[in-house]
Amino acid sequence: MPKLLILSKEADEFQRLIEAAGLPGLETFTASDPKEALANGKDCEILYGEAWLMRDVIPQLPKLAWVHSMSAGVERLLDPALRRDYVLTNSRGVFGELMREYVVGYLLAHERRIFERLKAQHERRWDRSPVGRLRGRTLGILGVGSIGGEIARTAKHFGMKVHGYTRSSETSPDVDLYFHGEALLDFARGCDYLVSVLPNTPETRHIVDAAFLEALPAHAVFINIGRGSAVDESALIRALETDQLAGAVLDVFEQEPLPAEHPFWSTPNLLMTFHTSAMSSPPDLAPAFMENYKRFVRGEKLNYVVDFERGY
Amino acid sequence: MPKLLILSKEADEFQRLIEAAGLPGLETFTASDPKEALANGKDCEILYGEAWLMRDVIPQLPKLAWVHSMSAGVERLLDPALRRDYVLTNSRGVFGELMREYVVGYLLAHERRIFERLKAQHERRWDRSPVGRLRGRTLGILGVGSIGGEIARTAKHFGMKVHGYTRSSETSPDVDLYFHGEALLDFARGCDYLVSVLPNTPETRHIVDAAFLEALPAHAVFINIGRGSAVDESALIRALETDQLAGAVLDVFEQEPLPAEHPFWSTPNLLMTFHTSAMSSPPDLAPAFMENYKRFVRGEKLNYVVDFERGY
Repeated sequence: MPKLLILSKEADEFQRLIEAAGLPGLETFTASDPKEALANGKDCEILYGEAWLMRDVIPQLPKLAWVHSMSAGVERLLDPALRRDYVLTNSRGVFGELMREYVVGYLLAHERRIFERLKAQHERRWDRSPVGRLRGRTLGILGVGSIGGEIARTAKHFGMKVHGYTRSSETSPDVDLYFHGEALLDFARGCDYLVSVLPNTPETRHIVDAAFLEALPAHAVFINIGRGSAVDESALIRALETDQLAGAVLDVFEQEPLPAEHPFWSTPNLLMTFHTSAMSSPPDLAPAFMENYKRFVRGEKLNYVVDFERGY
Repeated sequence: MPKLLILSKEADEFQRLIEAAGLPGLETFTASDPKEALANGKDCEILYGEAWLMRDVIPQLPKLAWVHSMSAGVERLLDPALRRDYVLTNSRGVFGELMREYVVGYLLAHERRIFERLKAQHERRWDRSPVGRLRGRTLGILGVGSIGGEIARTAKHFGMKVHGYTRSSETSPDVDLYFHGEALLDFARGCDYLVSVLPNTPETRHIVDAAFLEALPAHAVFINIGRGSAVDESALIRALETDQLAGAVLDVFEQEPLPAEHPFWSTPNLLMTFHTSAMSSPPDLAPAFMENYKRFVRGEKLNYVVDFERGY
């Protein structure tokens, strides 16, 4: 009988959902911190939880066969010094739907001048200055996996053109034009909007640097919902301060929570959210784990397996 | 050779677009006000322009056969005291695409707490309070014509449920559930969001009244992009002041521009825009006129004919 350890601040709710689903032959244990995890679940084969909590537990689980991360980002588990003798899967599918709402929300806030209209209201000013629209604009997506594909689909619904930059894959049917490798700056030059969905890997570090920001048109808006490591933060501040870029919307940062003294808090034309673009709840996340569990007991290939080398 | 009088503040741009299209046998005249119109185009058969400008000219054009309004709303031309011995068509098709962006923009501003996040940023506060999503929410649409149908289609794209209230028509395949006639309050009770796209007709006057607002759930947000006459403005202010309704977004008002002393400017949880939800430009509007012109010269039935009795 497989043993599952759920290691999460919301472990009890996950346990309730998983037990309600009546998965065949599964015994579940819960823990909200690594110490409790080792006390309760040392002989588990399956670990399900938050990557930052699991990291310290994984080396000490002798029977571990499979780890499923509640998040998409698993960089904490990829350190080459850590063991890799288990199958690592992450959560996909659920984030795209939340992130496309985030992206469209901020694109439309920009096009429809939502903040400027509120200011006009406060000033009792009947403000009929022109507004923009999404149709015909080009959205560039840095990193087109399952999340980028969802965003591309929604962009097409609104009549946008979609450009994608990937290492080599061309999986989304909603991307009109793909760019790879050396074509990075060509990709940048064609964007009205740029969204980064890139994970934190050595290849993506500071891919959005001074040269990239200079290649973006001056009317472009940059949205980062991937990882903060993809951005040279000093170069972004300079680009915004010198109007080389119309705006940025950042959900992720090199250091989180963002330190109180960081210049981003008051950089002009920068909007921020707080790693909340894909805030999801246990009912969003549990189904993907449960589907994988059924595959696990049948000995089938799991969904969403992470390649330790590629990092995603 | 048919004579067309273009009566609009943007008449010159419309003329350029129409002449560039090389419509067979058309002679065009432009005017930016009624006086100029009567001086230049008194013997026109076709009048194309802004309803509020055309109203005073129409009685004085002896050869008039067809009037095409640049706006969707034509209430100014429907007064029973005015002549009706011509075919009246209005602009449709172009507004739905702009209005769906407006609606989604404000729905997402609400769900993603865009204004609250900006406040947190100003306060240097790492604010991870939960955000919402569109999937699963019910959008009620008051008046489902071509604009309502576009909004319904986009709502389905985001996984929303769509309810529609109409007099009798059930034309949109994206409406999950239709309500008619006496079922108005049942319709209201089921809405998480309500959008009114209703024209100004005697039947729609104050359809959103105190009883309707009371039937809406307290968490609901009301968006009006139709006509201000559909709303009992005093009842709406009371509903917002007493938290009977979570919010309202108004683009249209009983009196426009909204008078400086109107309470809406500072009503709590009320956002306003300034009859800009479907701000369109000559290149957006001219194609529908030109398509209708081709039908006119071929003697075919015109698109978008307004029924003087129904008012739309």
